[in-house]
Amino acid sequence: MNMKDIIELKRYGKPLSKEQIEFFVKGVTDRSIPDYQISALLMAIVLNGMNTEEMTTLTMAMAHSGKMLDLSFAGDVTVDKHSTGGVGDKVTILLLPLLSTFGIKTVKLSGKGLGFTGGTVDKFGSIEGFRYEIPADEFPGHLEKCGMVISGASPDLAPADKILYALRDVTGTVDSIPLIASSIMSKKLAGGADVIVLDVTCGSGAFMKDFERAKELARAMIDIGNGAGKKTVAVITDMDQPLGNTCGNTLEMQEVLQTFAGRGNTDVIEVVCRIAAECIKASGKANGLAGDDLLYECATRLTNGQALSKFVELISSQGGELKNGLNPVFKDLPFEAMRVVAPESGYVYSIQTDAIGNAANHLGAGRKTVNDTIDYGAGIRFYAKRGDKVKKGDVLCSLCHGQKAELSDDVLFDVMDEVLSAYKISDEAPEEVPAVMEVLS
Amino acid sequence: MNMKDIIELKRYGKPLSKEQIEFFVKGVTDRSIPDYQISALLMAIVLNGMNTEEMTTLTMAMAHSGKMLDLSFAGDVTVDKHSTGGVGDKVTILLLPLLSTFGIKTVKLSGKGLGFTGGTVDKFGSIEGFRYEIPADEFPGHLEKCGMVISGASPDLAPADKILYALRDVTGTVDSIPLIASSIMSKKLAGGADVIVLDVTCGSGAFMKDFERAKELARAMIDIGNGAGKKTVAVITDMDQPLGNTCGNTLEMQEVLQTFAGRGNTDVIEVVCRIAAECIKASGKANGLAGDDLLYECATRLTNGQALSKFVELISSQGGELKNGLNPVFKDLPFEAMRVVAPESGYVYSIQTDAIGNAANHLGAGRKTVNDTIDYGAGIRFYAKRGDKVKKGDVLCSLCHGQKAELSDDVLFDVMDEVLSAYKISDEAPEEVPAVMEVLS
Repeated sequence: MNMKDIIELKRYGKPLSKEQIEFFVKGVTDRSIPDYQISALLMAIVLNGMNTEEMTTLTMAMAHSGKMLDLSFAGDVTVDKHSTGGVGDKVTILLLPLLSTFGIKTVKLSGKGLGFTGGTVDKFGSIEGFRYEIPADEFPGHLEKCGMVISGASPDLAPADKILYALRDVTGTVDSIPLIASSIMSKKLAGGADVIVLDVTCGSGAFMKDFERAKELARAMIDIGNGAGKKTVAVITDMDQPLGNTCGNTLEMQEVLQTFAGRGNTDVIEVVCRIAAECIKASGKANGLAGDDLLYECATRLTNGQALSKFVELISSQGGELKNGLNPVFKDLPFEAMRVVAPESGYVYSIQTDAIGNAANHLGAGRKTVNDTIDYGAGIRFYAKRGDKVKKGDVLCSLCHGQKAELSDDVLFDVMDEVLSAYKISDEAPEEVPAVMEVLS
Repeated sequence: MNMKDIIELKRYGKPLSKEQIEFFVKGVTDRSIPDYQISALLMAIVLNGMNTEEMTTLTMAMAHSGKMLDLSFAGDVTVDKHSTGGVGDKVTILLLPLLSTFGIKTVKLSGKGLGFTGGTVDKFGSIEGFRYEIPADEFPGHLEKCGMVISGASPDLAPADKILYALRDVTGTVDSIPLIASSIMSKKLAGGADVIVLDVTCGSGAFMKDFERAKELARAMIDIGNGAGKKTVAVITDMDQPLGNTCGNTLEMQEVLQTFAGRGNTDVIEVVCRIAAECIKASGKANGLAGDDLLYECATRLTNGQALSKFVELISSQGGELKNGLNPVFKDLPFEAMRVVAPESGYVYSIQTDAIGNAANHLGAGRKTVNDTIDYGAGIRFYAKRGDKVKKGDVLCSLCHGQKAELSDDVLFDVMDEVLSAYKISDEAPEEVPAVMEVLS
């Protein structure tokens, strides 16, 4: 078998065999295939696609390129959740404790935020003492203690994906359903959970800009998951505006606490409960509840304190500091440095969400490169969201930085301009978009 | 400017600007762009194409990546001819002396044969003493002496093409009109001739298998040539069977001598004369002759001894040995080792021409890798061509090797099997295909 023939097959739009795909992934992992041949094949896959069988084979081969976690020690069904990223996305932080009230064990492997999207482990990182680099051999202890563990992705999972991703990043081959799906799913399969739930975000703050492509990606990942013998469900959620009231690390953790206390935003609650319901059904833990009854039960447990006590257990289990055993101690708190007001009256017609994510990063909330440090207190608090009617001078949102941080007026005014051009105010009311656009399984 | 953005533009099917293409070619030539980015862009070009402006810019940038020959010393219009390769293709060897009888000066830069196609310099190489590595600074002397020079391509012409070609060869990105056209034309433009004439072969013995694609390649090269200010014409010729009566180095030189002596095959004569007529018109040397009159004049000079004496001058100019000052002395002569006979009666319906080229190579006529040595006497002599009616047992062709060479019966029988499966005999007569399928300018 040789790599040139494999490239040519795909160049002519032909499907690759199991042997050919496995030869490729093996050669990527052991570095025997030169990068120039890898990138040529990647571009051919980007432009000529892969069928479901090829994607499943590619994903399995990538998953098996490194360690495969065995979560059978959990003694029960385990769930892993993945989001394709967004702005203000605090779903995982609410979901894990909620699922825990149903006796569902979760192992969440999560990357750091990069670019305009935030990362779940960074949000937990805003809490003093919280450890998020948990080695795999400590997972059983954490699951025993509180039924949940959240960890920055282990470096020995799916090493082929790391090599391929680094190359895709510099060869214009990131945007491809088969390559995105296999990259995400290889890590999920190596992670070892029984149930995989995927939040495929869609809109200006997501990688998938339109619904049809988001659905295509969701479909591809479900097919791969099912093909690999895992229960896999996906929801497509709206990311055409930031989710909830805040984006930024401490800001979002504070919003999480508000939500647990019954003062959360309805879009966040809807997304969390719909995803939770799918996880609960897929795990066989619904106890006869279904449809709206199950959703109601989720919303109740999310907001009546049950989920909150599980959340406190999770923080404690991973070393996070709690004041009075209840309230997380944050490394820094947000300071509202500037309010952004509506330049005219009308409806908030749209919010360019990736621009909002970038603006939050300019305040210090995120990283441009993996080595940048984060201002945990930085971010944006939203007062007006899509569809809201505002009068000229009403506050749209406020720009925050950490109380320990300093930010020049120049930066604040620049960010204000960025945010203002992301908000579109119109005489016309925008069409309503549901927070959860579709559920697939 | 950065390479990733350039790759992404082409990945989304957008045209590249002059600055972007020049940045790319410069980075290829000075090796500042890594191979994995080059090959990703090449695959994106293969699959998403290039418009005429992009192709012309790419070709010009590749031509200017090295030395640009200046042929103005010739004091008259100069012609360069290129063939996209074939089996039994001895056109150049006949064309140069014929053009010389019209006072047209030719500088022919030619590569060695590789794969199933033969190379013109290898055919000249069958003559004792013939030098075909002529440095550019000796071109004036040769043009002065006989009006013609033939040389293996100079290594300092279009170095970007050499780098790109080596990479294309191992990344499945050879088959692409913009990349083939720019590769060929960059060397032609760097070669400095005023008139470029292109023989685009078409069929099972050519790189272009079907007429439409051959025409597309011809069109692309003409557009590039004209865009670069060169008179450029192309003929599309049939390569769905070997050209003439022979393939192999000495065998073809002997056929050339037969043709000069008036005993040539009509397909060869037609192709040579049609190409010659285009060159003559483009060079302004037709002296009022046109159409059939010009073709008749070409055929006359080709076969009445005029072209032969020019041919003898060319051999002599480049150091080739001549017996009695007239007949080339060959390094080895063909020995007819085996005759291949028709297994049944019928029409020769088709000849799988690349298989014939490979069979000739297995007899020793060509190279698999650039370092292989050649048996100049090896090759195949054809007794029946497409459309001929044969009876069972009639000779289809004979297999030859050099008189100094030895070949086992096993090899001969294997090659016989190869050749037999290349010949398709049928009750039905095949459709007639003209040797010259179309002339474009």
